[in-house]
Amino acid sequence: MEVLKVSAGSKPVAVAGAIAGVIRSKGKVEVQAIGAGAINQAVKAIAISRGYVAPGGIEIVCIPSFIDISIDGEERTGIRLLVEVR
Amino acid sequence: MEVLKVSAGSKPVAVAGAIAGVIRSKGKVEVQAIGAGAINQAVKAIAISRGYVAPGGIEIVCIPSFIDISIDGEERTGIRLLVEVR
Repeated sequence: MEVLKVSAGSKPVAVAGAIAGVIRSKGKVEVQAIGAGAINQAVKAIAISRGYVAPGGIEIVCIPSFIDISIDGEERTGIRLLVEVR
Repeated sequence: MEVLKVSAGSKPVAVAGAIAGVIRSKGKVEVQAIGAGAINQAVKAIAISRGYVAPGGIEIVCIPSFIDISIDGEERTGIRLLVEVR
C-alpha cells in the first residue's frame, strides 16, 4: 500500500491532494505521523481530502492505529491512519 | 448525538473507554478537539477504543471534519471526529 509520511511542517492542503490522488487510483492509502504536530496536520489533511473526492461520489473514512516506526535505528511510536473508501 | 470534548490534557485511555461505551449503546459518537495536543489525544483514544470494541465484533471508523466551536463567545476552528460502527 502507498504510504504518505506527514510531519508537523507538512501543508494539509498538499497532503490532502496527495491522499485524494492515491484514493482515486488505488482506493486506499496509509498516512503515517509521529507526534502531536504531525498527527494534527494529518487529520486536517484527511478532512480536506474528503472534500476533494466527494464530488466524484467517493466517501472516505479513516482507521487510526499505533505503529512502531524505525527512524535512524531508533524505535518510535507513531500513528497510522488508514484512509479507505467507505 | 453524544459529544465527547477532548483536551490536550485528556487521558487517551479514559477517552477510549468513554468512546467504547457510547459506541456500544448508540453506535456512534462525536469527538471534538481544538488544537494539535487535543487532536493528538483524540486520535490516540480512537485507536485504543478500537481494541475495546473489537472483541464484541464491532469495527469502528472515524470521519474527520472541521467545526466552528464557540468558546466564551469566541469562534474557534476545531476538528470533529465522527466515530461510527463500520
